[in-house]
Amino acid sequence: MEINIRKRVLEANETQADKNRAFFKEQNVFVLNMMSSPGSGKTQLLCKSLTKLMPNIRVGVIVGDICTRNDADRLEVTRAKVTQINTDQFGGDCHLAANHILASAKDIGCEDLDLLIVENIGNLVCPAEFDIGEDARAVVLSVTEGEDKPLKYPLMFRVADVAILNKIDLLPFLDFDAKLVVDNMLQVHPRLPVFEMSAQTGQGLEPWLEWLKIKVFTKQEGEG
Amino acid sequence: MEINIRKRVLEANETQADKNRAFFKEQNVFVLNMMSSPGSGKTQLLCKSLTKLMPNIRVGVIVGDICTRNDADRLEVTRAKVTQINTDQFGGDCHLAANHILASAKDIGCEDLDLLIVENIGNLVCPAEFDIGEDARAVVLSVTEGEDKPLKYPLMFRVADVAILNKIDLLPFLDFDAKLVVDNMLQVHPRLPVFEMSAQTGQGLEPWLEWLKIKVFTKQEGEG
Repeated sequence: MEINIRKRVLEANETQADKNRAFFKEQNVFVLNMMSSPGSGKTQLLCKSLTKLMPNIRVGVIVGDICTRNDADRLEVTRAKVTQINTDQFGGDCHLAANHILASAKDIGCEDLDLLIVENIGNLVCPAEFDIGEDARAVVLSVTEGEDKPLKYPLMFRVADVAILNKIDLLPFLDFDAKLVVDNMLQVHPRLPVFEMSAQTGQGLEPWLEWLKIKVFTKQEGEG
Repeated sequence: MEINIRKRVLEANETQADKNRAFFKEQNVFVLNMMSSPGSGKTQLLCKSLTKLMPNIRVGVIVGDICTRNDADRLEVTRAKVTQINTDQFGGDCHLAANHILASAKDIGCEDLDLLIVENIGNLVCPAEFDIGEDARAVVLSVTEGEDKPLKYPLMFRVADVAILNKIDLLPFLDFDAKLVVDNMLQVHPRLPVFEMSAQTGQGLEPWLEWLKIKVFTKQEGEG
């Protein structure tokens, strides 16, 4: 029964995601869906990235959490346009779905944005199943989470267009094999681009920002 | 629609959880449901705990993962009875539900066990919603995950009977306030017992094991 119910939910989501995609195309904004476990450092990574990207690239952020607007408050310091979705009003949903996104995107106003980032709810499982009409998906994994995670949560790494291995400043204090985790990512998703970095220290941030800028410009030129 | 569907799924789960509870009572085995984000250190914590508990306390483990039997392989070294559930055969479920548990519990054989531990799928959201007929719930949070997690994922901390703050050996290398995270846990769940430890070094393991032993003996005496 549960599998059939899930199928219906995912079909309804896909219909809404197509509508979102049409809206984002019309607005000529590149949409990145950023996903990870709780505590992998998504918000810090975004704070650092936005500071570097703005104002040349005009960024908006939709932040998803079950409760609190902590992350939105942290991101607003960058002067990006930020809006928070709390899913406790939708029964505590464990992911952002397509139907959460469109109203927030309209609310934030996409007409003067180049890039809209959706910081999804901290969960390495469910968000991977829900298309929100995005142009690209990023998964963030931190080096404290263990090398086996790409093999244990393969869907997330399979649907990702880019992976970030965060908190590499902690490597000297951990029994963690960075080459092994990258090999495991590539085993489930061959040729996945992987950026190793520390959002805390800023090490390795630039190649990731270059990748993101190229994606944004390519969409704008393709439709300009 | 999604909320109604969820309600039906949870009701069906509750019915099965009651059946599990009756079975566990009949077998006189204490059942602990252990939950956390991916990579918080559940498996290492269990490996260390089982080595100390056995053979005086006879332990079995049901390990849930979407894919792989890595964790079961690691736990078998302790000589506990271990069985792995992979939810990829159930559509990649993001949590263990009551209907996953009974067959595995019968398969592992509970009649010669004092303690059955269910290592749930790494996810700080969904497993909290699914009663599996357990006697107690433990949540593990590691110090690399950020102090705000109890406020952002309150249901997990609200349903927990005990919390473990793991990886305290990393505190000297992090900008992390251990007092603040405990305060946040107590804000969502007053009087929640919290054990601070490092499963890696063994620091702080004993008080947690004492807590667990008392729980197991109390159930056995109550029903002996």
